[in-house]
Amino acid sequence: MQVDRQVKVGVLGATGTVGQRFISLLSTHPFFVVAALGASERSAGKPYAKAVNWKQTVPIPAAVRDIVVQPCKPEHFADCAVVFSGLDADVAGDIEAAFRAAELAVFSNAKSYRRDPHVPLIVPLVNPSHLSIVPQQKALHSPPLKKGFIVTNANCSTTGVVIPLAALEKAFGPLESCIITTMQAISGAGYPGVPSLDIFDNVVPYISGEEEKIEWETLKILGGITETDDGAKAFDMHAKHPLRISASCNRVPVVDGHTECVSVRFARRPPPSPQQVREALAAYSPDAYTLGCPSAPRHTIFVHEEPDRPQPRLDRDFQQGAGVSVGRVRQCRVFDIKFVVLSNNVCIGAATSSIINAELAIARGFIQI
Amino acid sequence: MQVDRQVKVGVLGATGTVGQRFISLLSTHPFFVVAALGASERSAGKPYAKAVNWKQTVPIPAAVRDIVVQPCKPEHFADCAVVFSGLDADVAGDIEAAFRAAELAVFSNAKSYRRDPHVPLIVPLVNPSHLSIVPQQKALHSPPLKKGFIVTNANCSTTGVVIPLAALEKAFGPLESCIITTMQAISGAGYPGVPSLDIFDNVVPYISGEEEKIEWETLKILGGITETDDGAKAFDMHAKHPLRISASCNRVPVVDGHTECVSVRFARRPPPSPQQVREALAAYSPDAYTLGCPSAPRHTIFVHEEPDRPQPRLDRDFQQGAGVSVGRVRQCRVFDIKFVVLSNNVCIGAATSSIINAELAIARGFIQI
Amino acid sequence: MQVDRQVKVGVLGATGTVGQRFISLLSTHPFFVVAALGASERSAGKPYAKAVNWKQTVPIPAAVRDIVVQPCKPEHFADCAVVFSGLDADVAGDIEAAFRAAELAVFSNAKSYRRDPHVPLIVPLVNPSHLSIVPQQKALHSPPLKKGFIVTNANCSTTGVVIPLAALEKAFGPLESCIITTMQAISGAGYPGVPSLDIFDNVVPYISGEEEKIEWETLKILGGITETDDGAKAFDMHAKHPLRISASCNRVPVVDGHTECVSVRFARRPPPSPQQVREALAAYSPDAYTLGCPSAPRHTIFVHEEPDRPQPRLDRDFQQGAGVSVGRVRQCRVFDIKFVVLSNNVCIGAATSSIINAELAIARGFIQI
Amino acid sequence: MQVDRQVKVGVLGATGTVGQRFISLLSTHPFFVVAALGASERSAGKPYAKAVNWKQTVPIPAAVRDIVVQPCKPEHFADCAVVFSGLDADVAGDIEAAFRAAELAVFSNAKSYRRDPHVPLIVPLVNPSHLSIVPQQKALHSPPLKKGFIVTNANCSTTGVVIPLAALEKAFGPLESCIITTMQAISGAGYPGVPSLDIFDNVVPYISGEEEKIEWETLKILGGITETDDGAKAFDMHAKHPLRISASCNRVPVVDGHTECVSVRFARRPPPSPQQVREALAAYSPDAYTLGCPSAPRHTIFVHEEPDRPQPRLDRDFQQGAGVSVGRVRQCRVFDIKFVVLSNNVCIGAATSSIINAELAIARGFIQI
Repeated sequence: MQVDRQVKVGVLGATGTVGQRFISLLSTHPFFVVAALGASERSAGKPYAKAVNWKQTVPIPAAVRDIVVQPCKPEHFADCAVVFSGLDADVAGDIEAAFRAAELAVFSNAKSYRRDPHVPLIVPLVNPSHLSIVPQQKALHSPPLKKGFIVTNANCSTTGVVIPLAALEKAFGPLESCIITTMQAISGAGYPGVPSLDIFDNVVPYISGEEEKIEWETLKILGGITETDDGAKAFDMHAKHPLRISASCNRVPVVDGHTECVSVRFARRPPPSPQQVREALAAYSPDAYTLGCPSAPRHTIFVHEEPDRPQPRLDRDFQQGAGVSVGRVRQCRVFDIKFVVLSNNVCIGAATSSIINAELAIARGFIQI
Repeated sequence: MQVDRQVKVGVLGATGTVGQRFISLLSTHPFFVVAALGASERSAGKPYAKAVNWKQTVPIPAAVRDIVVQPCKPEHFADCAVVFSGLDADVAGDIEAAFRAAELAVFSNAKSYRRDPHVPLIVPLVNPSHLSIVPQQKALHSPPLKKGFIVTNANCSTTGVVIPLAALEKAFGPLESCIITTMQAISGAGYPGVPSLDIFDNVVPYISGEEEKIEWETLKILGGITETDDGAKAFDMHAKHPLRISASCNRVPVVDGHTECVSVRFARRPPPSPQQVREALAAYSPDAYTLGCPSAPRHTIFVHEEPDRPQPRLDRDFQQGAGVSVGRVRQCRVFDIKFVVLSNNVCIGAATSSIINAELAIARGFIQI
Repeated sequence: MQVDRQVKVGVLGATGTVGQRFISLLSTHPFFVVAALGASERSAGKPYAKAVNWKQTVPIPAAVRDIVVQPCKPEHFADCAVVFSGLDADVAGDIEAAFRAAELAVFSNAKSYRRDPHVPLIVPLVNPSHLSIVPQQKALHSPPLKKGFIVTNANCSTTGVVIPLAALEKAFGPLESCIITTMQAISGAGYPGVPSLDIFDNVVPYISGEEEKIEWETLKILGGITETDDGAKAFDMHAKHPLRISASCNRVPVVDGHTECVSVRFARRPPPSPQQVREALAAYSPDAYTLGCPSAPRHTIFVHEEPDRPQPRLDRDFQQGAGVSVGRVRQCRVFDIKFVVLSNNVCIGAATSSIINAELAIARGFIQI
Repeated sequence: MQVDRQVKVGVLGATGTVGQRFISLLSTHPFFVVAALGASERSAGKPYAKAVNWKQTVPIPAAVRDIVVQPCKPEHFADCAVVFSGLDADVAGDIEAAFRAAELAVFSNAKSYRRDPHVPLIVPLVNPSHLSIVPQQKALHSPPLKKGFIVTNANCSTTGVVIPLAALEKAFGPLESCIITTMQAISGAGYPGVPSLDIFDNVVPYISGEEEKIEWETLKILGGITETDDGAKAFDMHAKHPLRISASCNRVPVVDGHTECVSVRFARRPPPSPQQVREALAAYSPDAYTLGCPSAPRHTIFVHEEPDRPQPRLDRDFQQGAGVSVGRVRQCRVFDIKFVVLSNNVCIGAATSSIINAELAIARGFIQI
């Protein structure tokens, strides 16, 4: 992938947690350049540095400090080829639809359109092929859209686990059952998010809607796209080989990095050995890297040999948070194989995925620049 | 259970974490009275208050401050009817054997004899009937012992999960499969235990030997005792209905209280509903309470209705740490039922269990007082 | 102090953090009985157990579960001899004034009236003599009140440090300078209070208004009451011996318990030695205990000899949180003496102080029961 | 400063916490190249990657993975122009002396020689001029050394506070009094260091020897060097203007970054205003930067305007941990000015200082390369 010119992008929800992360990541991007920032009416009209309660460990990028924040209306983003949305789910639906209708390519971290049958739910290291539904999405609009479409990325805890699951299916064929227990970082809840009194010296064994997201999104992502006689495309939700997934989601006192314990049963008998699984995970190289997407990790899955890894504090910055770390690959006494996966929920679990998705859309020609 | 006189007890490993907990609990016991304390040679000869690096949140009980610590040799415990062992596993084996040979009843928190085919592994709220192996254990000694025997309690993470599993088997018959993921407190590792740099802002997805303990001990505890033609007794390891258990153990930044996510499949079809499971758990009343053991919880399993409970910080002191809390009882998309159980690893998961075991042994006549 | 009958009390702000603490403490009180609960309109009309998001580590007391929450209007508290206020400062001013005007004795944890020249600001282990301003406060009302008055307790961080300072002034005469640095628990900010992302793995070196409270309240509490020629009383703010105080307040990742590092310079030369200071602190016995107030600690100040105490996790429950712990009493190379004081901000730093203040008011005859 | 060739360096204590940090920092250094690694006999003979229990959040640098660890004897470091010592204090004294005697330039993070009257104690952003004592140190050896000498850097908590104090003295003349309270990160204690049970949900108001280090080292660093009639040089310990310093040191639950609350009184009357202090701190530019030392921060002191900064989690990576952050500059009601300073204890508070000291020694000609 070779892009020789700057591509102007906008960020919606620019003052929020995900928005701040988009801005940090984009500040060093080889061709995306932040040209417009959108936020609520309360922030609109102020220079970004005044509007934001900046909570990143790096300073506000100089290039955006003085950009005047706009309301989230498409007319303020007319120059942009791409819009990244870090909007809260309660407002994302209408705003993103308006931006799509205004012929903008929207890459959203919000959940609003993840279950839409015409919107691809893309984990960039897993299923970029789902971009093929975009023409159908555009055609549904009246009149049909030329450039506007929406692509979503997955929930953070889904993203972490679906990457190794995809690697396993690629190597060994369909999975049959999967039981997942997550230990999720507080940053996953945004800001102000979790009150400190709720999570200090504590575990909260519940995150609203999270288990359903893992159980549903994983099927959409790992599944394929079927085509009916009249040419309509539909996500098959892994229907050819039914896959049962059960998730238990917990919040733990960790700042960044979701740890997930996973047990899987393969359809194929005999199942692969732990060593075969380790090798398949380590060898997994998705299209995003092959295509040269600049934000894709050079190494997608790091497989630890030490018995006590991965750990969020030590491993969450692997590949600048764009890769995932797997460890403890071993036999399961109930299913076939169990392992631990660690992913950086604020990077590959959120903004980084949206950005790679946009890179993929350019590489595949879904956006003309 | 009515005991009208004081029963003198000793504590081995009295300066360690578990020993301190024994001493705290015994200081308010209705009939056990600490009469002797044993520790390493380094501590022997000093008054307890000088020998110990006391780390409890209550002061050292006045009654033990000036007891002179002894080496862990039976002659210093001749007055004791019962000895509680909080010894480290690396020394517990020989010392506990010597105390048994000296005709002392030993209740141990160490792992050394848990797998011994003649030593009962008793979670007092589950399988006190396993005390019936004690006569065989005594008879094996040469010459046969009159009063000396060893009873162990289970590992802390086993204890927490086996209580609701026992309640489920009692109500609904045998379980077939069980997948468990634990989030264990740092106090489970003793003192100094886990270095702060290893666990701050972190999860460690590994605890040496812990998964094997859950997978093996649970079978011994939930299983029965078979008798051969010549009258020899043996633990059956749940053999009549094979039960497959898979555990994934994690250390999380919580001071006290182990949280465990559990998915189970019952042998019986159709399985019980979540509501039936809730009712069975809440109704579970073990013999330890029926017999009037003073340290047994009045209420064994509290079943939470709120979606975000149990939580270690809020629930670990339920029943002074002697009961367990269950919540999130719901259907599992892979197995039948999943739930969360929270137990206090330093209470019912350790010293409290040993003490109730001793109470049970008295109530059942295995110790004459 | 001997009270043979029940005294009905009300709690304002009953669903908040401080209100919950009042209710927990009062549930085991020898003579106070909760008869009425007040909260915002949103909660009014519901049984307490439904209205509250209970966050204590003990269950909701059975006696209050079904009390219907009322709006904070005096007519609903007509039966009460005493009203405890855990109201937020933004509403406490008007509501407490209305309750006083309705002839109720109000003991408030809010800051609204702390600086009022006719309202005593009482740390019960320090300055109960300030109750003597109550008649003047009642007389100011038109028409003069018979029973209604307001007493406030101090801010939590003030309370912790002013107790040992009072003990030092009692033993050694006036202090001249005092520099204080606090490390305050997150529970001091109420609920939801501090977002976890702000305080995990972090220190926040700022608490709005806190330094001013310590610097000002300490002078009011440690000062005396002067009387003008016409008999009017006024707080002298330690005027006879000017005392300069400088505080630096920090939030640290601790659930409960404020730790404060204090350096003091005495007026008297030569100053007392560290050993004399230790003895004076340990010997300090305030009127609240002498008078037999049931919630007053038997032992006010525990003086630790170990170099690394007090510590919040180990020492915050000393005397059920009603006493304070001092340690590291040593010479200061700039002033005379420095030490560390640890107080339980949710007990003596808040609700416990209000309750002892009410006990004192009864013992001293300011409330007829 | 322009160095066109590689300078070979060794690291003593290479497997320890400070040693790992040296190796991480040196892996990207423009001219220092790690050529030899020394550790205890237990590690000697193994490739570094096998010998070390690596605890950094970045991987082991490829260039050192296979270097065979040597015993800490000078003959194994003969190629090195500079040796960095991250040795524990209990062994550093003898080993560093042996390396000096073998004509090696030793830059030590250990405390062993900090109080030596011929060894400079250098905080590189403060007192590089103290290198002028090196010739005297070399001359004292018999026979006089040609190249061997020892330079130490300061304790981590001293380093953080002495940088702004130096800036203040440079701008406004001598200080008279200084009271400091520290809130220090757990990484300051090395590994395994602080047991998690000691510091979770806790503050430990004591760090052995730490207060004495701040009180003594600060005087040596801020003081000058006097010369007697016979030309002997001596550190004057700030004698011309006696400076009284009192420190209170606390361990808090923070991974990296020491926060310190400081109150100062200037000799000069009237003292500078808070705004003058802010400007002087922000303008402070030490010789290390002017000389072009590559590891010196471009910006030494960042002065925050927001009331709640600096904070360790957000600010410890300022200038890759080589700068310090100051905030809350305001008047002190007892002294003149108070402020908060945050420094990265594992960077400028440790290895980074040693490395800049070595760069300074080269820039000033004390090492021939």
